Amino acid sequence: MMNYQKYKRFETVSLKDRTWPDKTIEKAPIWCSVDLRDGNQALVTPMNIQEKVKMFKLLVELGFKEIEVGFPSASQIEYDFLRLLIEENLIPDDVTVQVLTQCREHLIKRTFEALDGLDRAIVHIYNSTSILQRDVVFNKDKDEIKKIATDGCALVKKLCNNFKGQVILEYSPESFTGTEMDYAVEVVDAVLDVWGASKDNKVIVNLPSTVEMDTPNVFADQVEYVCRNLKDRERAIISVHPHNDRGCGVAATELALMAGADRVEGTLFGNGERTGNVDIVTVALNMYTHGVNPELDFTQMNDIKHTYEECTKMEVNPRSPYAGQLVFTAFSGSHQDAINKGIHKYHERHQKQWEVPYLPIDPADLNRQYEPIVRINSQSGKGGVAFVMDTVFGYHLPKPLQGDFAKIVQNISEAEGEVSPERIYDTFRNEYIENEEPFQFIYQKLTDISEDTENEFERKVELTIRDHGEERTIIGYGNGPIDAVKNAFNDNGYHYIHLLDYSEHALTSGSSAKAAAYVQLRAKGTSIIEWGVGVHPNITTATIKAIISAMNRIHKDMREAA
Amino acid sequence: MMNYQKYKRFETVSLKDRTWPDKTIEKAPIWCSVDLRDGNQALVTPMNIQEKVKMFKLLVELGFKEIEVGFPSASQIEYDFLRLLIEENLIPDDVTVQVLTQCREHLIKRTFEALDGLDRAIVHIYNSTSILQRDVVFNKDKDEIKKIATDGCALVKKLCNNFKGQVILEYSPESFTGTEMDYAVEVVDAVLDVWGASKDNKVIVNLPSTVEMDTPNVFADQVEYVCRNLKDRERAIISVHPHNDRGCGVAATELALMAGADRVEGTLFGNGERTGNVDIVTVALNMYTHGVNPELDFTQMNDIKHTYEECTKMEVNPRSPYAGQLVFTAFSGSHQDAINKGIHKYHERHQKQWEVPYLPIDPADLNRQYEPIVRINSQSGKGGVAFVMDTVFGYHLPKPLQGDFAKIVQNISEAEGEVSPERIYDTFRNEYIENEEPFQFIYQKLTDISEDTENEFERKVELTIRDHGEERTIIGYGNGPIDAVKNAFNDNGYHYIHLLDYSEHALTSGSSAKAAAYVQLRAKGTSIIEWGVGVHPNITTATIKAIISAMNRIHKDMREAA
Repeated sequence: MMNYQKYKRFETVSLKDRTWPDKTIEKAPIWCSVDLRDGNQALVTPMNIQEKVKMFKLLVELGFKEIEVGFPSASQIEYDFLRLLIEENLIPDDVTVQVLTQCREHLIKRTFEALDGLDRAIVHIYNSTSILQRDVVFNKDKDEIKKIATDGCALVKKLCNNFKGQVILEYSPESFTGTEMDYAVEVVDAVLDVWGASKDNKVIVNLPSTVEMDTPNVFADQVEYVCRNLKDRERAIISVHPHNDRGCGVAATELALMAGADRVEGTLFGNGERTGNVDIVTVALNMYTHGVNPELDFTQMNDIKHTYEECTKMEVNPRSPYAGQLVFTAFSGSHQDAINKGIHKYHERHQKQWEVPYLPIDPADLNRQYEPIVRINSQSGKGGVAFVMDTVFGYHLPKPLQGDFAKIVQNISEAEGEVSPERIYDTFRNEYIENEEPFQFIYQKLTDISEDTENEFERKVELTIRDHGEERTIIGYGNGPIDAVKNAFNDNGYHYIHLLDYSEHALTSGSSAKAAAYVQLRAKGTSIIEWGVGVHPNITTATIKAIISAMNRIHKDMREAA
Repeated sequence: MMNYQKYKRFETVSLKDRTWPDKTIEKAPIWCSVDLRDGNQALVTPMNIQEKVKMFKLLVELGFKEIEVGFPSASQIEYDFLRLLIEENLIPDDVTVQVLTQCREHLIKRTFEALDGLDRAIVHIYNSTSILQRDVVFNKDKDEIKKIATDGCALVKKLCNNFKGQVILEYSPESFTGTEMDYAVEVVDAVLDVWGASKDNKVIVNLPSTVEMDTPNVFADQVEYVCRNLKDRERAIISVHPHNDRGCGVAATELALMAGADRVEGTLFGNGERTGNVDIVTVALNMYTHGVNPELDFTQMNDIKHTYEECTKMEVNPRSPYAGQLVFTAFSGSHQDAINKGIHKYHERHQKQWEVPYLPIDPADLNRQYEPIVRINSQSGKGGVAFVMDTVFGYHLPKPLQGDFAKIVQNISEAEGEVSPERIYDTFRNEYIENEEPFQFIYQKLTDISEDTENEFERKVELTIRDHGEERTIIGYGNGPIDAVKNAFNDNGYHYIHLLDYSEHALTSGSSAKAAAYVQLRAKGTSIIEWGVGVHPNITTATIKAIISAMNRIHKDMREAA
């Protein structure tokens, strides 16, 4: 048994009169990407300058207006990168870069050197305020820790005098979630006082869940507490910077937004120290699927993933919401069936509102494909197979044929594992369309004989086939082409066949317009029932080929039964 | 811009008088693993029978008492696997296997065939109840959908008459989160009535978040609603089965437990359809780090991961909480420093309660190593380098030496990327211990001359060194060995050196007990300051070697300056 007594929950504020659980998220927060700082710092191989530029450009394209670009006073590479952004004019007018620094004199001074020439920047200062860090790391009391923050703020303010651009201050009480809430508010208020913050000169107050310590509702309580207890809520932009140590970074962010946060710091796909920062892709697309404008554009999801993976050398998890390789995939037969039906209804009804079972988002909105939605393994049923045949190849299989074919595919998947769409299609062709033994279609001539009063039928067919290798022409009459062909066989010594089911449709895919015909036959005097499929530009020919295919399948069944 | 108007949030119950936000999780739920069903069905390559047996054994070892082993009526492999478990007696007495089936007659009958010979089983029936699925998939009204559930239940009840073992019923209103809550309660109550459920004959009522549709607080409201509105709460075990489409599966589970759920269905590492099921590893270890017995044992985390990856052919994400390869890794210098100090204090104070910054859990509890905690890249500072030298190699570097050495390592990491502990150690040895040019230690003889009244000093050293390739013996006197050695150099024409700092300690690692000595020297009349380190079983020899190393470093600086 694991020694759970070694741990205890950190006791923090519990807001009995919390209001956030009755709220919903109605608009996008201010997004701040920390991919180039927190994200980059947590990479086994941090990005080089070229990769940083590439990532920066991606973030701008996606719509980020605030981007933390590094800790320039702590690393020469980050210093050089910021200088490059400035000197090469890579920062668009509507984008503000943000730089991180500890509240230490030489680091703050060096930070301002790095910013030289910028019109506008967010200078993000932080110091750790938690009980634990005050004790084991800093060995300082509350006032001393507060003084680190206010001294840092005062120095930034002073250096602004000689800085030509505009500086927006951001202050983080680091390890906020492990800090007494009243003390956190006290420190933040002190910083805002020193800065001279006001409604028109707001400070970004960033509340990091530096280490995720509790269930996400507790973080929401903490955020709501700060929002309600600041001396003047109006002079702060409340920002959150959640990490994911308990796997709840997205939830903590969402509940914090409900609790009053205005701004979110996070990364693409949740990169960042340890378990990562909050995944902004997921938070933004969660909003999107609730009809809220996320103010970020993830339309080109595969390209975004590609650039991300290239720059970070990390892989997006195949089960990562919205972006993962497997998330628009349904292996379960009943899921596949429901998706199939749902997508059909969605199109049939020309619905404006997306509502499809098991698909909270339309993959097309992310430029992801429908094809990989349904993947066929041994757990799949007819719904999935039908979906692949329909969506990828354009064959609308009649329902009994779906079941028939799904069994064949399941046998393959039980033996071999996942079955690709191509393999499914090949199997379908071999089984139902191109099975030409012992009977093979060669030629047909259909004549309208409705004027011929000596014959009770309206159609005559002359049908040339190869029968066990030998060419043969047989003739049949009927009231329609199918009837005539059936009679041609039944009157010429073949197994007497009953036609049980028939359907056909135009094949939309393919270069030339073809038709697909589906025929279900029963061999008279037996319980043997088989489907055949024919494909041909001429619908009658397609049907004849379908009948011959079904006959071949019946023939095979009989030989196997014998 | 993305077309967000295409979506809307599903309107569901909002429980104004909810009680769950004031609750905390005080005990482990009943865990049910669905790794072999929902998890397996979502694999590109589902497990073969050997892999299923391996996974089943792992789940039993971890402490799962309820394990869903498949959907035996839908797949021959799952049927065969259950038969194997029964016939080979692989199910321990205290473990109950669970089988899934739709509420369809032939499937339920086939399920009972698969169960033959079992003493006890959970038969899990389900049908979809959501507004969307009733409409687009089933085209049935509320009463018809309810009847599917009650008919299924009645059939299971009937088949129990001819079944020798005990059957526990589980019912899932699938797509629960998209169902009207009053209707969900109505269906569940109807099933419980048909079954004749009671306090002594409880039914497992499983509330799946089949597709995660909203923020996790909404799921908690829904669960609390059901708990409060069932005809008789006592006749139900409330279970949840959360998915992760919005990245909030863990949060939804935790808030649902606070809202009254008794039981959780999920998988190891969150495997499962699309974005996966809830990750039970994370939920359980979240409890553990709050001092709650998780009733599952993840002590051998690396082995668990290995077996999981082998069976599923999926990889555990490097940022997956508790289990991921990078989650006990801190690249940031300040994090490394804080971890370093925190671990020291934790040991120094002999604390019972684990409290270390940035490490919500002691990696040793999961049999994971301390060594990979701190990884050194260009973002790291002296804290990380000091931590590696200390924890991995046993060298307690004096603080100024930490800064000195960290600069050397940072130069390497900026040029080459991540620096391994071995590389750090090699660099340290080359720089400080084994630098023997131009001066190399050969031999020393230390004599106690305190009895010698003709000499004012207490120690005499005869020191043999190689100086620019030539062997030379010099003699020095002093009040201690260091003093004597220093004087030997200063009196014999070497750069006159000042001793600024000195420390030494026993090296705990290594086969023979050795000492490490650290010496900081300044070359007189210059501002050149250097550290040297000596390692030797004899502490005096170690110190002399440290002095010579520092002299070599000073010599090099002077040549470079010249």
